[in-house]
Amino acid sequence: MRVVVALGGNALLKRGQPLSAENQRANVKIAAKAVFGLIEAGHEVIISHGNGPQVGLLALQNAAYKDGGSFPLDVLSAESVGMIGYLIEQELGNLLPDGKLTATLLTQIEVDPDDPAFGEPSKPIGPVYSEEEALRFAADRGWVIGPDGGKFRRMVASPIPKRIFEIDVIQILVDQGVTVICAGGGGIPVIRRADGNFTGIEAVIDKDRASALLANQIGAHALLMLTDVDGVYLDWDTAKQTLISRITPANIRKETFASGSMGPKVEAAATFVAHGGTMAGIGRLEEAKLILEGRSGTIVATV
Amino acid sequence: MRVVVALGGNALLKRGQPLSAENQRANVKIAAKAVFGLIEAGHEVIISHGNGPQVGLLALQNAAYKDGGSFPLDVLSAESVGMIGYLIEQELGNLLPDGKLTATLLTQIEVDPDDPAFGEPSKPIGPVYSEEEALRFAADRGWVIGPDGGKFRRMVASPIPKRIFEIDVIQILVDQGVTVICAGGGGIPVIRRADGNFTGIEAVIDKDRASALLANQIGAHALLMLTDVDGVYLDWDTAKQTLISRITPANIRKETFASGSMGPKVEAAATFVAHGGTMAGIGRLEEAKLILEGRSGTIVATV
Repeated sequence: MRVVVALGGNALLKRGQPLSAENQRANVKIAAKAVFGLIEAGHEVIISHGNGPQVGLLALQNAAYKDGGSFPLDVLSAESVGMIGYLIEQELGNLLPDGKLTATLLTQIEVDPDDPAFGEPSKPIGPVYSEEEALRFAADRGWVIGPDGGKFRRMVASPIPKRIFEIDVIQILVDQGVTVICAGGGGIPVIRRADGNFTGIEAVIDKDRASALLANQIGAHALLMLTDVDGVYLDWDTAKQTLISRITPANIRKETFASGSMGPKVEAAATFVAHGGTMAGIGRLEEAKLILEGRSGTIVATV
Repeated sequence: MRVVVALGGNALLKRGQPLSAENQRANVKIAAKAVFGLIEAGHEVIISHGNGPQVGLLALQNAAYKDGGSFPLDVLSAESVGMIGYLIEQELGNLLPDGKLTATLLTQIEVDPDDPAFGEPSKPIGPVYSEEEALRFAADRGWVIGPDGGKFRRMVASPIPKRIFEIDVIQILVDQGVTVICAGGGGIPVIRRADGNFTGIEAVIDKDRASALLANQIGAHALLMLTDVDGVYLDWDTAKQTLISRITPANIRKETFASGSMGPKVEAAATFVAHGGTMAGIGRLEEAKLILEGRSGTIVATV
């Protein structure tokens, strides 16, 4: 089966861990092992990944050093996917047999400059702050800040992905048996300007949405969104919380989930299946193979 | 003709310019125009590029912000090629007709952990410093510093590139007519550890050397090294300085050039032609087409 595997930010960096190169590499090794299990089982895998903590850190590093100017989010996002893609490709390469090719592709994704998301920044990036710190950054750096799990984070616009510029290149490589790492961080957000030229824009595309678009466009059978929780729960964090094992796109869309965590995954799963995908799975990184077999996590499918 | 175009650091950032995103984009537009001229003339172009100023800046940004740990040069290099590759792909894409595909590939290049370069760091990265500043950084950060044009810079090891991990992927894409951006910054330096696994190492591979290896391995006819000077001069900066218009690999190797500027370009040109390349050209970015026609710059060829 052709499978798009979306590695969540929490699959690349454990909650609360400092974002050092060593920690990233240690987590990437675990993710590479999970992906390798799928490739070993004969599946064609395309890997996408988040970059929220990383792009946030690069923004802070950029702000801390005064002599180079302030880099916009599209440029920082490109930096982050270089870093993350490199680590994934290297650690996956250490597991794959000789001759099995991998490629990490920069991926630009077109968004609509009139997307209402630009008026309503809602995607958290970077570290969590106390309310006091967050208010100071808002004043000093012009950031929009918002609540995230009891603390505060920087919030940026998260427009809908419309078109993957490199889709034909991805298709060529996948058809040749290459394991492609792409659409990192949801892709680099790009708009068409009034003069017809494309340019980057300050935003972060949700990586689950971008992964669903990617999965539909390359004709994937399955989309796996891998993270550090068992799957999607009804009544999460209450006495009656229940894991959803299997559900249709129509039925999962009737439920409401937190916009910062399961909401985008659920919407991406429903969108992928509604547009022709066979199944989408949400669950633990370590259980990737079981999820693909429908034996773990939350499976979204029409039957 | 199949042509590898190596964009020098000075083709991406004018000497003395601050390394802002805007300055990089403005220079990348000029470089993209030069490359587009070659593609328009019917050539198959593969683009490589330097990253000296960029990787140096990212190292300084990383050092300025304390909370994320210190990223090694291989990781910083991966970040830098994400940033630069993105800008090149976007601006070139704005010139190319619809349907002409481009791809930016992360490129890992194997080096020998016993390369003598590791004992003798000689590749300047980052900004220039006064002697006093440089000595302070050497003491505070453990950097090796060295002279560069009357000032001082950080010096890192520059080992010989041995093997391009992604060469088969590059070949697939070039054969399909895709304009590939790869081997940025000379590629990300990787060694094989005693346990057989590959990992990054603190070094910067010379991008001209890496470009020559790339050009030979993909069977390019020509290697163009584009910068901000006319070509290679004998007796440079003296009253009798003379531009070399055309020379054989054997003859150019008899001359001595500065290791920080023309030395690596001359060696890369001679290596490429000695290993089967038809011609290598060194000269001004804006004259790329004329250089390829043998009508500008310095041409290294066997006849």
